[in-house]
Amino acid sequence: MTSSLDPAIAARLERNPDGLLPAIVQQHDTGEVLMMAWMDDEALHRTLTSGRATYWSRSRREYWVKGETSGNPQHVKEVRLDCDGDTLLLKVDQVGVACHTGSRTCFDEGLLGG
Amino acid sequence: MTSSLDPAIAARLERNPDGLLPAIVQQHDTGEVLMMAWMDDEALHRTLTSGRATYWSRSRREYWVKGETSGNPQHVKEVRLDCDGDTLLLKVDQVGVACHTGSRTCFDEGLLGG
Repeated sequence: MTSSLDPAIAARLERNPDGLLPAIVQQHDTGEVLMMAWMDDEALHRTLTSGRATYWSRSRREYWVKGETSGNPQHVKEVRLDCDGDTLLLKVDQVGVACHTGSRTCFDEGLLGG
Repeated sequence: MTSSLDPAIAARLERNPDGLLPAIVQQHDTGEVLMMAWMDDEALHRTLTSGRATYWSRSRREYWVKGETSGNPQHVKEVRLDCDGDTLLLKVDQVGVACHTGSRTCFDEGLLGG
């Protein structure tokens, strides 16, 4: 879709075949990795201009303002693009829990090794 | 390809259409997000059993032991799978720099907003 994203930023993005970039979401002060989600240009535009983390839901095929239904928003402190232009890093202040399971992060339960 | 990955772990993985999962790589003590890379079952198996972060290079179509050519290996402290089974989080001890540009992380130069 057409997006209002700053063309100078849009030109730096290396999107996947679906037009999306993965966004790693990190708690800004503790460094916890909270979750990963996906953004298209418009989700990035909304995130940068609203200060509220906004993603593209691949399953529901709609924009998703984190916390709009759960009551656990992410207030965006910083957005970074990696050296290849294909991955985003959001530093946020997560209100409450990040995971739909009720855990603080989406990785809390999933220890495979180490 | 056939992999020696523990079948109990393999059964939990939700791979993308290319058979891959994104792996977020974090410095275990400082919490810095260093980079993102991709793993298939075999890369995950090698990472879990060798303790050296091993990825699948989508561009070169080969396994890639981080640091083998750069001299900057990642010693793996912990591997976690997220609640959906489709994203990995590696906590590592990064020797030297993570980024091929010579920066400590792949996100150092890419501030978009915040």
